[in-house]
Amino acid sequence: MEKIQGNLLNISTEEIYGAEISFHNGIITCVKKVEANYNGLILPGFIDAHIHIESSMLTPSRFAEAVVPHGTTSIVSDPHEIANVMGVKGIKYMVNDASSVPLKVFLTAPSCVPSTKYETSGSVISTEEIKMLLKDDKMVALGEMMNFPGVLNEDPVVMSKLEAAKRIKKPIDGHSPLLTGANLCKYVMSGISTDHESTLENEALEKKRLGMKLMLRDGSSANNLKDLAMVGGDFIVSDDKHPEDLLNGHVDEMLRNAIEYGIDPIEAVKMVTLNPGNHYNLNTGNLVPGKAADMIFINNMEELKVKKVIIDGCLVAKNGRPLFDVKPIEIPNTFKLKPKNPSDFNVPSKGSTETVRVIEVFEGQLITGEFSTVLNRVDGNLEADLGNDILKIAVVERYGHENVSNAFVKGFGLKYGAIASSVAHDSHNIITIGTNNRDMAKAVNTVLRNEGGLAAVSNDVFYALELPVAGLMSTERVSKVSSELKILHNAVRDMGSNLKSPFMSMSFLALLVIPKLKISDKGLFDVEKFNFVDLIKN
Amino acid sequence: MEKIQGNLLNISTEEIYGAEISFHNGIITCVKKVEANYNGLILPGFIDAHIHIESSMLTPSRFAEAVVPHGTTSIVSDPHEIANVMGVKGIKYMVNDASSVPLKVFLTAPSCVPSTKYETSGSVISTEEIKMLLKDDKMVALGEMMNFPGVLNEDPVVMSKLEAAKRIKKPIDGHSPLLTGANLCKYVMSGISTDHESTLENEALEKKRLGMKLMLRDGSSANNLKDLAMVGGDFIVSDDKHPEDLLNGHVDEMLRNAIEYGIDPIEAVKMVTLNPGNHYNLNTGNLVPGKAADMIFINNMEELKVKKVIIDGCLVAKNGRPLFDVKPIEIPNTFKLKPKNPSDFNVPSKGSTETVRVIEVFEGQLITGEFSTVLNRVDGNLEADLGNDILKIAVVERYGHENVSNAFVKGFGLKYGAIASSVAHDSHNIITIGTNNRDMAKAVNTVLRNEGGLAAVSNDVFYALELPVAGLMSTERVSKVSSELKILHNAVRDMGSNLKSPFMSMSFLALLVIPKLKISDKGLFDVEKFNFVDLIKN
Repeated sequence: MEKIQGNLLNISTEEIYGAEISFHNGIITCVKKVEANYNGLILPGFIDAHIHIESSMLTPSRFAEAVVPHGTTSIVSDPHEIANVMGVKGIKYMVNDASSVPLKVFLTAPSCVPSTKYETSGSVISTEEIKMLLKDDKMVALGEMMNFPGVLNEDPVVMSKLEAAKRIKKPIDGHSPLLTGANLCKYVMSGISTDHESTLENEALEKKRLGMKLMLRDGSSANNLKDLAMVGGDFIVSDDKHPEDLLNGHVDEMLRNAIEYGIDPIEAVKMVTLNPGNHYNLNTGNLVPGKAADMIFINNMEELKVKKVIIDGCLVAKNGRPLFDVKPIEIPNTFKLKPKNPSDFNVPSKGSTETVRVIEVFEGQLITGEFSTVLNRVDGNLEADLGNDILKIAVVERYGHENVSNAFVKGFGLKYGAIASSVAHDSHNIITIGTNNRDMAKAVNTVLRNEGGLAAVSNDVFYALELPVAGLMSTERVSKVSSELKILHNAVRDMGSNLKSPFMSMSFLALLVIPKLKISDKGLFDVEKFNFVDLIKN
Repeated sequence: MEKIQGNLLNISTEEIYGAEISFHNGIITCVKKVEANYNGLILPGFIDAHIHIESSMLTPSRFAEAVVPHGTTSIVSDPHEIANVMGVKGIKYMVNDASSVPLKVFLTAPSCVPSTKYETSGSVISTEEIKMLLKDDKMVALGEMMNFPGVLNEDPVVMSKLEAAKRIKKPIDGHSPLLTGANLCKYVMSGISTDHESTLENEALEKKRLGMKLMLRDGSSANNLKDLAMVGGDFIVSDDKHPEDLLNGHVDEMLRNAIEYGIDPIEAVKMVTLNPGNHYNLNTGNLVPGKAADMIFINNMEELKVKKVIIDGCLVAKNGRPLFDVKPIEIPNTFKLKPKNPSDFNVPSKGSTETVRVIEVFEGQLITGEFSTVLNRVDGNLEADLGNDILKIAVVERYGHENVSNAFVKGFGLKYGAIASSVAHDSHNIITIGTNNRDMAKAVNTVLRNEGGLAAVSNDVFYALELPVAGLMSTERVSKVSSELKILHNAVRDMGSNLKSPFMSMSFLALLVIPKLKISDKGLFDVEKFNFVDLIKN
């Protein structure tokens, strides 16, 4: 039997009082009031109820090393990135790599792998696999149902996955950007209970009125917490956290923001403790008998500086430093493709000029535009038009089929060289953008040689961040990954791009479920028509 | 597809607005805002999260007839009274009798049948039976764990029942009067999540601090809502509702009281809709897509007059009248005992006077006292002492063993005759209190002849309320049952008793889990020592 004492923020009664918390074998056995004054405050450990670990470019154990000192004791992670690459094996990797660190990594069974049938992914997660996964206690929900057209059209495979979750009485996470009216009703009626994609107050309010639990998002790719703070919600989540942002914090930072945006501090704490604990039936999230002894000491609610972190009754971090060893698990190469030649990126043309569709990228947005331009033929092929910032873009299939699809993109601003990445949502083929074919081939081949990662090639100078775990994650520490990423970003800026996060922006150009013009390894894709379109306009 | 329109009280957003609610096959398909003004208010149907239907002396279908017009659309009932008489067969009777009426009768698997080993019950519910029961979707929790000593001492049978509920992920209801400190911690740690037995503010607050969900009780036997309103809680429940009280209302009446006692009206509505719906995983309790179309129209939040009741999309009550037929199911006689003779109630004595222990009854309390008095021997037996209000009390075993145990009681005030009842918690043997053996035998034999119920015999005039369903319930309407009960109460008053509810008071004298002196068919029982004590003091 162990005991700790301090000022407890009791989230059931919203009181603060001196308390003694006893625990045994990691489980709280008693909490009693004591007459004494203490410094600081004891809170339940924080829970990020929706995150994709892969977005941190860290393995689960490295992610734990980064976030546990910030007070995160549990996360609910949807492993759909690695699942697209490696299927159930990838999900098992996440479980195994997390098993050696104290962070509690709960998972959701990814519902949409692959996200569409118009691309080549490394794996398909079937309904049978979903059923098998959901039997595991670590698998706390069916992952975000991004395929809302499938729900609305009652696609049998989608329905069978929803049914599997309902049968085993696990919640179903949603993903329903801008869905409204009768369509939203139908989506909710299917049993989907959460949403983290609201961006507008009215949108959030409509979902809340229909009983959805809102996840207010304060992540690296999308920030809606400020806009939606006054609507309120049940959870605060990150969805995605990039390595450089993790240096500033995780849930602690989200909490500080929430309070700054006007959410009642105790309400905010509940959104990252009690509420996710209850919703996902986790044995954590409140400091009461029978729950896991997952708790943190902070200095005060204003600064929210995390001093000590206890998971299952063990001190696991102190003054910002983890007290546990991290040995990330490596995995064999997942890339099955031959090195590429410059000619793989040719866009042959019959005419001496052609009118082509161009993907238009906007800073800080996942939504793209489409416009037309006229390009000239050089040696039989259409070339980039650097003067007008029309660059070449290609998706190189990496799972053994050797597909390469080529198109054009505006908004990256490169004047030299090329960039490439094996982080390319959701199928994670290799995506590349460049000023010329030779550098594109070099950048892709650098990624290939590194067994995954990001690369920039300019004037025969190579920059790279290696992500050898499924092409998505590094086994290095967050500090190393973020400093390498910074070097890469600087290099790309020197190559002419003004985008804040050029690799992140590029990674979403292959995500066929966000409008308007996108590209997969199979071709140029019009999300609104939900079908391929020709590159060359007739 | 059907539609209704009106002012919706949206309990998710705490707004009131004009809405159109669509439903199909009893399930809500859409809820949309409309621009129009309506009279009255639409609320989710009410849920009583903890009640023993048997306390109403009505079968489930007759109970439904009484409460549905008051807006009750679901109840969570613990059938432990009938389970003590008939075991699983009795529970199945409750399900079957309820199946013909629209009221949704969810049940909990009774955890404590019999309540102690010091009495003869009609049945024992084993862990195996609990497991079997909990598989049923209608069985939403393990019923109130009254055996808190068993929890504290880790009694293997008690532990196995708790484990069965945890394994199937159903909640466990508690019952922990005055439990505090380390004992309360241990009780909570076992996984028990609710309590409806708090009577004191401090007691309730301590439980709340430990994360228990409080059921504020506003029933016929116990009223704690007023005292605990300021502590707050998750549910408002009745626990027991007697037939005469049901004439005034059910959850609607509890809500009116809650608001009068200062609970925020919308919070109060949540306590009888959303909260129990969520806690017990019921598909009701909120008017959102996917939930059952269980809703009520009221005039306003001040008067809370229920105008219309809709269950599964069907209008089932209007202006206080049910719109459904009720055909209660009858069951065969459950009494296995021979008619009793006056000599069965003899208390033989060696001395000409003896000092005996007497059960002391207090108006309006379930707790009894113990005191000693000297009684005279007449014809070899100790007799009642009417001058000092020392009456005879006996428990007559009804399950085929023919036990009769005799003792003395003070507080009933009878000057003539005797009363008897087959409602005698929790084993429901026949209990009788009288001024003389002859009338006690007549009263018991009247109950026996009626196959159950209450009886009063005075000067060879007989009054009776027949409860032929397991000796606990009538197949008649609430109006008939309560008027017969009124006649009985008047008769008992004429016989000299000043107790408000003499039969109710008597029924708890056989409940061996509430201090201090009680009586079972096996003898006089000291609850504090938790063992039998001799009637005659040496």
